[in-house]
Parts: sequence; structure tokens; C-alpha cells
Amino acid sequence: MVSFTCDYSEGAHPLILDRLASTNMVQAPGYGEDEFCVSAREKIRRSCGCPDADVFLLSGGTQTNSTVISAMLRPFEGVIAAQTGHIAVHEAGAVEYGGHKVLTLPSHGGLLDERDLERYLEAFHADDSRAHMVMPGMVYISYPSEYGTIYSFDALRALKKVCERFDLPLYIDGARLGYGLACAEADMTLEDIAALADVFYIGGTKVGTLCGEAVVFPRGDAPAHFFTMVKQHGALLAKGRLLGVQFDTLFTDGLYMRISRHAIEMAMRLKQIFESRGIPFFIDSPTNQQFPILTAGQMQALSGEVAFEVWERLGDGRAVCRFAASWATTPQQLDILEALL
Amino acid sequence: MVSFTCDYSEGAHPLILDRLASTNMVQAPGYGEDEFCVSAREKIRRSCGCPDADVFLLSGGTQTNSTVISAMLRPFEGVIAAQTGHIAVHEAGAVEYGGHKVLTLPSHGGLLDERDLERYLEAFHADDSRAHMVMPGMVYISYPSEYGTIYSFDALRALKKVCERFDLPLYIDGARLGYGLACAEADMTLEDIAALADVFYIGGTKVGTLCGEAVVFPRGDAPAHFFTMVKQHGALLAKGRLLGVQFDTLFTDGLYMRISRHAIEMAMRLKQIFESRGIPFFIDSPTNQQFPILTAGQMQALSGEVAFEVWERLGDGRAVCRFAASWATTPQQLDILEALL
Amino acid sequence: MVSFTCDYSEGAHPLILDRLASTNMVQAPGYGEDEFCVSAREKIRRSCGCPDADVFLLSGGTQTNSTVISAMLRPFEGVIAAQTGHIAVHEAGAVEYGGHKVLTLPSHGGLLDERDLERYLEAFHADDSRAHMVMPGMVYISYPSEYGTIYSFDALRALKKVCERFDLPLYIDGARLGYGLACAEADMTLEDIAALADVFYIGGTKVGTLCGEAVVFPRGDAPAHFFTMVKQHGALLAKGRLLGVQFDTLFTDGLYMRISRHAIEMAMRLKQIFESRGIPFFIDSPTNQQFPILTAGQMQALSGEVAFEVWERLGDGRAVCRFAASWATTPQQLDILEALL
Amino acid sequence: MVSFTCDYSEGAHPLILDRLASTNMVQAPGYGEDEFCVSAREKIRRSCGCPDADVFLLSGGTQTNSTVISAMLRPFEGVIAAQTGHIAVHEAGAVEYGGHKVLTLPSHGGLLDERDLERYLEAFHADDSRAHMVMPGMVYISYPSEYGTIYSFDALRALKKVCERFDLPLYIDGARLGYGLACAEADMTLEDIAALADVFYIGGTKVGTLCGEAVVFPRGDAPAHFFTMVKQHGALLAKGRLLGVQFDTLFTDGLYMRISRHAIEMAMRLKQIFESRGIPFFIDSPTNQQFPILTAGQMQALSGEVAFEVWERLGDGRAVCRFAASWATTPQQLDILEALL
Repeated sequence: MVSFTCDYSEGAHPLILDRLASTNMVQAPGYGEDEFCVSAREKIRRSCGCPDADVFLLSGGTQTNSTVISAMLRPFEGVIAAQTGHIAVHEAGAVEYGGHKVLTLPSHGGLLDERDLERYLEAFHADDSRAHMVMPGMVYISYPSEYGTIYSFDALRALKKVCERFDLPLYIDGARLGYGLACAEADMTLEDIAALADVFYIGGTKVGTLCGEAVVFPRGDAPAHFFTMVKQHGALLAKGRLLGVQFDTLFTDGLYMRISRHAIEMAMRLKQIFESRGIPFFIDSPTNQQFPILTAGQMQALSGEVAFEVWERLGDGRAVCRFAASWATTPQQLDILEALL
Repeated sequence: MVSFTCDYSEGAHPLILDRLASTNMVQAPGYGEDEFCVSAREKIRRSCGCPDADVFLLSGGTQTNSTVISAMLRPFEGVIAAQTGHIAVHEAGAVEYGGHKVLTLPSHGGLLDERDLERYLEAFHADDSRAHMVMPGMVYISYPSEYGTIYSFDALRALKKVCERFDLPLYIDGARLGYGLACAEADMTLEDIAALADVFYIGGTKVGTLCGEAVVFPRGDAPAHFFTMVKQHGALLAKGRLLGVQFDTLFTDGLYMRISRHAIEMAMRLKQIFESRGIPFFIDSPTNQQFPILTAGQMQALSGEVAFEVWERLGDGRAVCRFAASWATTPQQLDILEALL
Repeated sequence: MVSFTCDYSEGAHPLILDRLASTNMVQAPGYGEDEFCVSAREKIRRSCGCPDADVFLLSGGTQTNSTVISAMLRPFEGVIAAQTGHIAVHEAGAVEYGGHKVLTLPSHGGLLDERDLERYLEAFHADDSRAHMVMPGMVYISYPSEYGTIYSFDALRALKKVCERFDLPLYIDGARLGYGLACAEADMTLEDIAALADVFYIGGTKVGTLCGEAVVFPRGDAPAHFFTMVKQHGALLAKGRLLGVQFDTLFTDGLYMRISRHAIEMAMRLKQIFESRGIPFFIDSPTNQQFPILTAGQMQALSGEVAFEVWERLGDGRAVCRFAASWATTPQQLDILEALL
Repeated sequence: MVSFTCDYSEGAHPLILDRLASTNMVQAPGYGEDEFCVSAREKIRRSCGCPDADVFLLSGGTQTNSTVISAMLRPFEGVIAAQTGHIAVHEAGAVEYGGHKVLTLPSHGGLLDERDLERYLEAFHADDSRAHMVMPGMVYISYPSEYGTIYSFDALRALKKVCERFDLPLYIDGARLGYGLACAEADMTLEDIAALADVFYIGGTKVGTLCGEAVVFPRGDAPAHFFTMVKQHGALLAKGRLLGVQFDTLFTDGLYMRISRHAIEMAMRLKQIFESRGIPFFIDSPTNQQFPILTAGQMQALSGEVAFEVWERLGDGRAVCRFAASWATTPQQLDILEALL
């Protein structure tokens, strides 16, 4: 059985495991003050071109989103997101649990449109009853989006301009950041992300680590006592080294982008396998997640040999399916899929 | 430099690392539905003598406490703890962040006394204004306590009896559970803990894993939709296997108790090193944390060679210090300490 | 200057003021245990045809919504509402502040459609990732809606049937309940509301009192310790008598419905004034709020003499306006308006 | 039956009722923008000697405390209070419900001691693990305290000095402020309170109104969007006029202090009645609440004729009782009590 169900089916990239083993008995202080975290943070700063950045290593995505968002919003503020945004749908209400509303705008293939954003903000500030409403306090986007799509540099700059006009920080959820930056359609680098975002995170869990996401405040302006808020959210690992070692390895010799490019290469072969058989796609994704629309027969053909996610059943027996490639996907796995179709 | 600063200075027990490596490329479903988690849960159930237990694997202690406590309390309830309890002091207000008050009672060397508890509960229920007060909804204790002390079986049974009388669940924070159960003074087993607690957790982070705590509802009565609450708290790892593999290893061939006993052996040698030099203790701890009171001279002698935590400075230049042994402590490390004193 | 801006422009109905004066120096216990509250609760039970109902008197609408909703939802649940629902838009995020998401469905002139509700609930329960999502835990509607529209008995029964199928309590926000029940289009009584709702409130603030809303759990199944949650939400008045006296008066000799009918009579004359001049309406409202679309010239004609609310400016100089009648509206006020148009 | 149970047994001062009646049909905007609120705020500013103060009118004490405290604290901060402080004991955990810990210090007859405060703050800032702890963010005191006691001007200035040293706002809960300022022992005026507090509230509910507390930020530095937070807490009355009219009346011609002085006069006669019979007091209170220790016989003598609150039963049949005088207490009521003893 081969699985394309998600991009977190395997453990960690072997170089990470090796590094965990070789550093295992080094005694180090807890809570992120160890040498590995120090080094990881420094390498991340360098990769972002932000020597003054504040970097924090947390363990998972929902945790990171809820910690960052509550730390940055004031009590009467909410966070703007696309209706399909992860925080709006699949985080079990973690943002609301922290006391804040997710203010949703239409999704364009998973992306926010800067005109929707501008129109919403203008209407809000023109509304006489706005003092009775949740005030927009932050803009959340994901790069790539939950549908595998990405913003162009121009689109992101346009969003940022609207954010600046309304004095709103822009937060980029980079759970799969590497897979976005490595794709052929991307016209941005990590440095561009760091220049445009007020805060973002570099996803580890889906890009080679066992766990871990690196939150970056590129201008070094993390909210006061952010460390304590990380603790309060239960997001502080005693053995911070687990995250430090992993991110230090990812950001040594360009491993993060290297394995991201591999995943994209595999994803494009995946896409091509479907395309060459005339299988249509729900959405045209340039990144590691592909959404072919399979017939009942095609699903039957794969059944028992290849695992994937059924995203949405259509009325006619067909279904939108999700196939994810990752740093761990092998050509052999693709061959098996191809043979079965 | 040798460090006795804490019991989370090293990575994971080597058998755990090996297992992570050997299972690394196995494809497995996410969110704790993988084979390793399934097996770990089953072994934990067996070790607890609770075939019907609900077991959940979370990544850290504060996270576990805040998730369990908010899942079990109703909005108008608080959790009772000793004034020195971890949730009352060192979790950055995570319980309050979740909307609940920590109702503190006197600490007796880190322990709750069942008479204090009974007196408090009787007074509460006799108070005419109790409908204006936070209602006690749960009792939290740590075993061993933050001061290394433990409850006897009788003391724990007495606490439990009071809890039953007032219909309060008893929650045991077992961040260092193995070190408690393995000590010479302990007259309890894991099965006893499971029989007396309504919910407890078996600490991994401080007892051999890189991260991870196993929450056990021994009677299989976890709150409805606890999984979703774990997600909402940001406590659900996508790669649940990381926790599954670790706990599965810990609960294979008695590794958890074996490494716990080793830590206690080291701790008792540590204790003896201080005792034999006439160094007094702040508290008489039978477990892996020792609290000698060192003079300025003694601290000076260790400085630069042996690291430890200064717990509380006394007026006269002396200080209560914390020296922690763990599964990773070696006789050689103790020799270095001994030589310096 | 005459104002139709809202239905809370004046103080209280004169009979209420008289009663406050005549009972003023009677000494009474606090927190709703006074004789006036006791009597008010009893009269409300009788008016609802629910001898076992639990009745609580709170001071305002947002407060009532947030208290009831947090008391009834479990931490992982959200409340379903129309996109235009008061809790979704104009309560400054009070529901989210209490930790819960508002799950919005399309608004049909302010109303929820039972087919939308059913489709949403079916889709939720068929979604494989629902354990990562906020679980629907309650349905909120307003009667009449924020647009003055009302549910027919059949429509409400259909909604209730869907709620029952999915085991969800139905909560009716009756901030303007009297104005809904008194209108010509209404085919329901207070008893019907009580029979269909699991919890609802009878609005006082907009229907004759200085402040106050009466929460009714018709089957006497208020959440345990609801009183304490009212206190926790800051919603418990020390001088509960203020609410008791007011509601006791409203529910003596049918005052509540009598003044509601007066408001509707005035609203229908208001409507007719616009209609007879060919002024179109944004929505066809049978209750006390009317939404004519006025031209710039018409607004100019009223300016300085008649106050109203500009609801939404249209591009062409016209605007949707809100004119509200209430228990306090007089024929003379309508004459002034009519003369100016 | 005469009741001394509390200071909220009657309705409102007759002048307030008259004013409510005479202004009843004036049409006014909602939410505190009416002319009565405008005037009340201006008069309160003048009485406080703070022309730039921000003043907000809320309806109850717990509501006011929880709104002010959550608006002023950052998520990782807690509020310091005496163990006996109202927010620590009798507000059903409203502060924790808002996400914040109440950090308690010893109570000295209801009062905080500036040395305790300073010692606690010094210890906190010297604690190496303080980043894992709730950070003190505000100091809460009540004037007079829950035991009727008051701070001297010097004691309050000393507390304030400690607050300033640690950059903490000082918040004074003035639920019974008038009764404190009017007592013989008081060496402060409302202007002094305004000069020393960073935020405080002037209690109405217990000093002559039906409901209502006036929050004052003397330096005009209310937290941004405090209005929206008031709304979010369900603390915004649609008919703000109810509070405006009441406070405007209280602050016209010195009514607030005049009725406070009357209450103190009655309380001192009350005290004298007990003293002259050799009845001891639990605490020596100079304000409107008196705490005599009555024997079973004495309580029996009053039973059925005079109501009071049993504060705490002592072992020997005696009980600490609370007798409260207020603006509404009459000499005749005292005569009845005296006759019975």
C-alpha cells in the first residue's frame, strides 16, 4: 500500500534523525535556550535576510496560529481570513477559544483578493455601528493555500498595501511554505515573504520534521512577553532542543528548499500522470497537493493499493480527491500509481 | 560541564531514538490513528490494568493540564490545587486563560492534605453566598510533587475518599510519575494510580522521551469529543506517530519503570553525596529531585564544572539548590560532583 | 424634533414608572429573590403556558445572548445563526469572547431557512474531518428578525424539526418579541414560542422597560448553576427588583401585548404613509421596524424635524432608512412625519 | 420586619425616581450618547477635579470589574488583590472567565499592605522562572473594603508609590465609595481618589441608584475602544439614559455625598447601639457596614423583627453578623433594633 493521503505520512528527513541521534546526549538547557535553537534561529534569520528577526519554535500549526493570533490581537479585534482558511474551518475553533472572531471574506481558489479586503475594510470604517462590531485587527493568509494555490508577488504586495493603509499586520501561515516557494509558478523567495509579512511561520511538520513550526517576526517586533504567551498556550516544549535540532538541520546547506523542490518535482509528475489520462482537476494547483476528480472506476482501480483522501463526493459517483507529494515521495511510489490507473 | 539542572537536559532514551529511526519511513495516518499510537495505547492500558481506559497522547505538560482541566470543568467551576502546584504557579496562567480559577489550598511539602480539602469543601457548601463563588469542580495533585515528595497509598486513598464524598474527579499530574513510583518510599503501583485517579497523565518528557505525555481516563469515560478539544488547544500533533513510537517503546519490556528506577538509584547516590558531607536539605525528597542547601563556598566549588538550579537564595549567602537525576544520569557525572564537593 | 431612530428612545411605560415609585421603599432581598421577581416569574410562566419554566431576569440583550449561549454550549461547540443575526454582527464578538464560534448560514430577509440548516448539518456530519471542526451545538434565531421579518408557525416548526433531528436546542432571541407576536402576519402566540423554543427571551428594553430581558427555559431545564453563570457574566443586578417590578408590571393585565399592539398599529400607519407616496421599501416588514428607501430630497425634507437611521447608502443618493415605532410612538408624531413628506 | 441585611434593600433615592419620571418621554439617543449621560459625565469630571477624565456608566459591580480588568490587562498578566477582595471571592470567577488570574496577597482587615505588595513584586522580578508565571499587571483595591475598613491617604499614597515603581495601574473598586469618603476616619476626598487611582469606579447601586457604576479614567487615558469592550462584555445598556439620569441626579447639588453622610450617621448610631450593650465587633469599621458578634440569645431576640446577615458562625453559638446602613436607613429603623436588643 502506497499513501498519497497527506504530506505528514512519514517521520523526519533522515538528516534530521541523524542529527537528533548525534546530539542526543549533549546536555542542554530547556525551553529553547539550548545551542541548537540558538543556531537554528540564527540560520533562519539569515535565510530570511532579517538579521533582527525574532524567531520562536513551536510544535504544531493550530497551536502556532492560535498563539500568534491571540498575542497580536487586542480583545475587541478579530482576524480576517478567507472562508476556506485553515483557522476558519479546520482548527476546531481555536481562535474563538482564545476569544477572537474569524472575519471571513470570499475565497478565490483558497486565496484572498485584495479588492474584497479593501472593500470590506472601507465598508467597516464607514459603518456607523462599527463600535458595536468586531474590529478587524489582522489579516491571515496561507501560502500556499489549503487548495495548493499561491499568491503572486504582485498579489501579495497588493494585499500588503491594503493592510498598510488600514494599519493591519499581515500574517502568513506557511505550514507548507517550502512547497509554495519551490514551485514553478512562484515568483517569490523566503526573503520576499519576510519583507511582506509582519509575522509568518515556516512549516516544519509537513516539510521534513517530526513536528515544529518556526514563527518569524521579521522586524524583531514580537509582542512583549511572547515567550510567556507561548507557555500559556501550552506551546512551549521543555526539550526545545527537539525543535532546535530539526530546524537547524533544515536550514543547513539549504535542506529546506532542497527537499521542497523534490516534493514539487514529484507533485508535477503526479499531476502529469492524471493529465495524461485526461483526468480533470478540481483546481489547478502548482504545489504539492493535487486535486484530481476521479471516477468511481478509477477510485476502484486504486483501492487497496494506493491511498488518497476523498475531498468531496460529487453527485455522479465521482469525487474530488487529494493526492499529496512531499519530501518523502519516491519515483517508485508514482510508478505504482501510474501502473494502476 | 555536567548538568543536574533538570530532568530534561538530554534527548531521548537511545531505544526510543532507534525506534524512531527504524519506523521512520513507514507511512502512517496522522493525528494519532497510526499503528504506533494504537499499540502504545494498548500497552498503557495493560500497564494500568485498565482494559477500557481512554488514552490520549499530547506533547507537553502545561498543554496537557490545560486541555484536561478545561475539558472536565463546567464554566462555573475551578480546580483545587496546592499553592505550590504547577498549575498554580508555573504554567503562565494557562488554566485561567481557559476561563477557570485555580482554588489553592495549603501545601505540605508540595502535597495536599485531605483534612484541608475536606474542611474547605465543607465550608464552601455551608457558605450562603456560594452561588456567587467559583464552585470547586476537580482536585489536582502532582505525583511526585514539585518538591519531589509523594503521597502514600493511604494518603491518596484518603484524598480520593473526600473527592468521592463531594463528587469531584481527582486528577494526577504525573509529569514525573515513573520517578515517584520507582522510589523506595512508594507503596503504590501504576495500577493503584489508575484505580484512584479519575484522570492522570504519565509523563514522558522528563522520563525518557523527546516530548509527550499520555493522558489516561482509566474508566474509559473521557469527556465527549475530547479529541476535538485536544485539537482546539493546539495539542494535536499531525505526526501523532512521534508520540506513539515513543510511548510504545517506553511501555515495551518495562522500559518506563526500568529507566525510572535507574534515575532513583542515581538520585539516592546524589542524596548520599550531600548527606555524607553534612549538607542539609530543604526538604526530604525520596525521588529524583534533591534540594540541598549549599553554602556560598560550596556553590563556588561547583561553579564552572557542575550546573544546578538555584531554587531560592537565603539571606545568609546560602541557597536552596535543585539537583535533578534522570534516566540519563551516569555514575561518572556523580563522581565529578562528589570530587568537587 | 421627532425621532423614529429606534425603539429605545424613551424611558419606560408610565405604569412601570408608577410601580417603581410605589414599591420604592419596600425592603427586599437582592439578586432576584425579591417578591417582585417571584411574582414576575410566575406571571411569565403563566403567560407562556409553562408552569415549570425556569425564568431569569437579565438586564440587556447582548448580555443575555452571551450568557445563555455560553451556558448551553460545550467548549467545542458553536452556535448557528443567520449571517445577519445580531450575535453574528452587532454584539462586538461577545460570543467569541466567551470562547465559541458563530457558525453562519445565509439570511433570507433576516430569517434562517430550514433547508439551509438541514443541508449544513447533513454535510457536517458526513464530513470526515468534522472532528477538526467546530461542532454545531445550538441554533439561534431572532423573532422578529433584525429586518423586522417573522417566521410563520410552519416555518418555525420546520426549523425545530431539523433541530430535533440533530439534537440541537433552539434559542429564540426575542428582543422585540412582542412586536413580532402582535403583528397581523403573526400566526403564533407566546405559548407557541414557548412550545417550540428550548430557550428564548422576552425583550423588555425595546418593549416598554428601562432595561431587562426575561430568559425562559420553558421545560424547566435551565443549565445547572445558571445563576452562577449569570453572576460570572456580570449580568446579575444586586437590585434584582428593578427587573422584577418592570416585568411584573408588563405581565399584569396583558400590558406587554397591549403596548406591542399599539406599536404595530403605529408602524402600519408609518408604512402606509410611505406607501401612499409611492416610496419603495428595502424589505416588506410586518413589524415595528420599517425600511423605506428615501431619495436625497425626501431625506432633506425631513432633516431637522424628523430623526431616523440611515441603514445603508445606495449609490444614487438614495438610502435605505430605518424608522422604528414603539410602545411610545404617538399619532401626533406620525402626523408630523406625514406633513413633511 | 426591618432589614439591615445589605445596602441594596430599597429602590432609588426619591430624587432619582422623580428625575426618571420627569425625563421619561424625552426622546434620546441610545448607548450613552444621550444628554443625561453627557451631563452626568461632565458633573463627575468636575467632582473629581479631572476635566479630561474619561467616564463610562455601566450597570453593576462585577460587570464593571471584569470589563475594566480585561480591558487593561495584557493576556499574560494578572491582577493583584487582597485575598478577601471582591474579585477574588464573590464574583463567581468573572476575572478568570475573562482569561486572567487574580494574584492574591494577605488581607489586613480587608486592606492591602504596601510592604506585602512591594515584597511580592520584588520577589517576582527576582525570580528566574518569572517568564513561566503570570505577570502582575494591575493592582486592585476596594475603598472601603469588603470589611468596611478604609485606607488612610498616606497608606493609599504608599501603595500608589509601589505601583508606580513597578509601572502598575492602581484600580479602586468604589462600590461603596461614598460611604468611605463620608466617614469620620476618612482623610481623603473624591479628588484625592482621582489623583491616586489610574482608574476607579463610583458606586451607584449601593449609594442611591437602582443600578449603575461610573468608571473614571481620571487622566483621560481609557484603553482604546473601551466602548466596544463594554459592549462585548454585555455591559452596554441600550437605554443609557437610565444610568445618565441617575448619575446626573447623584452629582447635582452634592446629593451623592449628602446621602453618603446620612448613611454614615445611621451606621454610627448602629455601632453605638451595639457598643453600649457591650457587644463586641469582629472588626472596627468606620463605614456603613458593621460586624457585631451576636450571641444566640441576641439573634433570637431580633428574629422575626430585624433582618441581618449571618457572616460567619463561630463554634460557640455566637456569630459574626453584618448590619448595613445606607442612604435609606431611618432613625425609626434603628429605634426598633435598639428596643429589641
